[in-house]
Amino acid sequence: MTRSVPHGQTRHQVHHGARSVAEHAAAVRDLLNGVAAGDRVETLPLGKALGRGLASDVDAPLSLPPFPNSQMDGYAVRSGDIADGGAQLRTMPPVPAGASPQPLEPGTAAPIMTGAMIPAGADAVVPIERAVPDYFLASGDGRTVTLPATAQGTYVRAAGSDIAAGEEALAAGTCLGPAQLGLLAALGIPEVPVYRAVTVLLVTTGDEVVEPGRPLPPGKIYDSNGTLLEAALKQAGVTVRRSGISTDNPAELTALLRARSQGADLIVTTGGVSKGAYEVVRQAMAEQPVEFLHVAMQPGGPQGIGTFDGVPFLGFPGNPVSCLVSFEMFLRPALSALLGAPAARLPLRARLAQPLTSPAPKHQVRRGSLQPDGTVRLEGGESSHLMHALAGSNVLVHVPAGVTELAAGDEVEVWML
Amino acid sequence: MTRSVPHGQTRHQVHHGARSVAEHAAAVRDLLNGVAAGDRVETLPLGKALGRGLASDVDAPLSLPPFPNSQMDGYAVRSGDIADGGAQLRTMPPVPAGASPQPLEPGTAAPIMTGAMIPAGADAVVPIERAVPDYFLASGDGRTVTLPATAQGTYVRAAGSDIAAGEEALAAGTCLGPAQLGLLAALGIPEVPVYRAVTVLLVTTGDEVVEPGRPLPPGKIYDSNGTLLEAALKQAGVTVRRSGISTDNPAELTALLRARSQGADLIVTTGGVSKGAYEVVRQAMAEQPVEFLHVAMQPGGPQGIGTFDGVPFLGFPGNPVSCLVSFEMFLRPALSALLGAPAARLPLRARLAQPLTSPAPKHQVRRGSLQPDGTVRLEGGESSHLMHALAGSNVLVHVPAGVTELAAGDEVEVWML
Repeated sequence: MTRSVPHGQTRHQVHHGARSVAEHAAAVRDLLNGVAAGDRVETLPLGKALGRGLASDVDAPLSLPPFPNSQMDGYAVRSGDIADGGAQLRTMPPVPAGASPQPLEPGTAAPIMTGAMIPAGADAVVPIERAVPDYFLASGDGRTVTLPATAQGTYVRAAGSDIAAGEEALAAGTCLGPAQLGLLAALGIPEVPVYRAVTVLLVTTGDEVVEPGRPLPPGKIYDSNGTLLEAALKQAGVTVRRSGISTDNPAELTALLRARSQGADLIVTTGGVSKGAYEVVRQAMAEQPVEFLHVAMQPGGPQGIGTFDGVPFLGFPGNPVSCLVSFEMFLRPALSALLGAPAARLPLRARLAQPLTSPAPKHQVRRGSLQPDGTVRLEGGESSHLMHALAGSNVLVHVPAGVTELAAGDEVEVWML
Repeated sequence: MTRSVPHGQTRHQVHHGARSVAEHAAAVRDLLNGVAAGDRVETLPLGKALGRGLASDVDAPLSLPPFPNSQMDGYAVRSGDIADGGAQLRTMPPVPAGASPQPLEPGTAAPIMTGAMIPAGADAVVPIERAVPDYFLASGDGRTVTLPATAQGTYVRAAGSDIAAGEEALAAGTCLGPAQLGLLAALGIPEVPVYRAVTVLLVTTGDEVVEPGRPLPPGKIYDSNGTLLEAALKQAGVTVRRSGISTDNPAELTALLRARSQGADLIVTTGGVSKGAYEVVRQAMAEQPVEFLHVAMQPGGPQGIGTFDGVPFLGFPGNPVSCLVSFEMFLRPALSALLGAPAARLPLRARLAQPLTSPAPKHQVRRGSLQPDGTVRLEGGESSHLMHALAGSNVLVHVPAGVTELAAGDEVEVWML
């Protein structure tokens, strides 16, 4: 470890002014645009499509409900028959859910179950609780039941009252969760076109990092970035290819990337992107169209972006909190925007439980936990090495550039992790 | 379909007063208590533990950081050497991250990289930007550098400043997400004891329901409950065993449950639990210790709970929205509480974008979407058949029992889905 590299001698571009968070987010989206295009759509049965992004609009092939049906267990009636203070009606054979009933004759009532088709002619349902007797007769046919006056349409779910045939059920880009898959099933659609999962080659770097489970020599630390980002990527639906830890030897890193990047949609490295003397990722990318720049963000300022042998490349900084913030601010939103999955983080507003300060030129991303009273408590300080504090957090707290201090009670934007 | 069952003639208990949401949630937790006990712990490598609940407390085997290290690229110094308005110091060999450096001699400065161990004797780091020259010398050893006065401790991350060895890192019951797994990796822990996934046998019932993809006869509807609950259970880390759709013949349902429930931790059925004439689940459970009752909740009031041949059993109502609400209100919280996974829904406060009404005796659960202005818009009405509205929602909106109306702007508790 006696290499010493003069600052600024590598061939790649150095970006001198800091880029805004929005600018870098757009650059990452542009980088991944090609990944989303092309042959990226596959058709999956509903049972395998959970968490995927829908690749095209889906219109409803039928109405929901498909036919008018009963919202209650009770009697289907012609409301006019009981309009005058109620009436005693002759009962007909019962209408179970799933049956296609006979039209309802005037002056009769048909026992009907929740969800069952309203017979032609009937226009209201009287709940069983309001009937006399208030239970279904063992042999319903031919007896009588006394029913109170009931308005037309009562407890009738109209055909198409949820969605009408031909209307858009789900838009392309929708992330398919339980409710969206349930809707497709309700529409009778057994399979859907979705975007194939993205494959990311994940490489952590640094002579100082050691795989968990091995002995820890003095001066070294355990690699948490690999585990952290692998889990975050998996949670986002990404297929992760781990390559272990690269040393700080650029030739080794280059060889590793060449050997492992085939078929990957994206390479993500951690560490080696700032201005120190031993920036292995910068050095390995010297001959590649990769830009190393500073985003006006804390933590996670130093970033690399470009392509390595034509494969899209993102170089995240080496600290674990910086890594996660880089993923949440740039890569995850790009995947959401381009592939519909994962679902975008929902921005919420919350009040700070305590004051904070932030450097004016930077967008600060603090970690916090939402409290039962609706306030957000900051977990750990600004520093990007605080893994324990991160593990106790459930939100990212955004302090936009230009804001230098906030008081307890001030409102901030938070993203739930 | 001419069976007609007099109300109240089956042998199982009928609970006459409605049970509160809290009471039924506790009953479901009690039911599953035995599932969580016993031989339910397995040890998994970090890469396979995502989304699992931690089965025991984990204390930190080492401090984080393990040693004092530099927060910046710069020069490690004895702050006393430059206290008097700064000084010119002789430079020593650089300290890369991962090295175990020699003690720092008085009157010298050692180039140091972010994350590298602070040499013994040094007590501050001067960032490279404040040094003259402001870049690392190609051969750092033996030259001089001019550094400004810098306070003791500046840019030094103290050993244990994130967590000290012996402190609790994660508590039993923690759901392992990226940050928690990252922390375990940082602590050098390669594998963890977690709760084994629960296996649920999922059976949807009803003569009226048809598998998506098949032709839809008049009066029938497509089964969405199976797809909806399978996805919700999978998202919660549950292993799902689907058994297709049972008819409304109790003997068939009983046979199906006997054939498929072996090794399952829980049986969940949908439909057939209310007071109509054709309640297949009620009928199939007639000889089993299963209680059918009404929870003071809308939707999702009718519920079954007990055991079938000794296997814990939950009978959800047949409407899809009722099913999802039942899952979110009762089963999901029980899994979170007993197995640490999935992570419990975080209750948030939001203001209604529009007024609502709710029946006084019931806890109403509406579906809504959080708007960019922080308000929550209701999606669809109270009715439990509105799958399209559910698919457009991202929160459940809680209207507690006793509340009959709320105005636009009133604050409600919401759970993000």
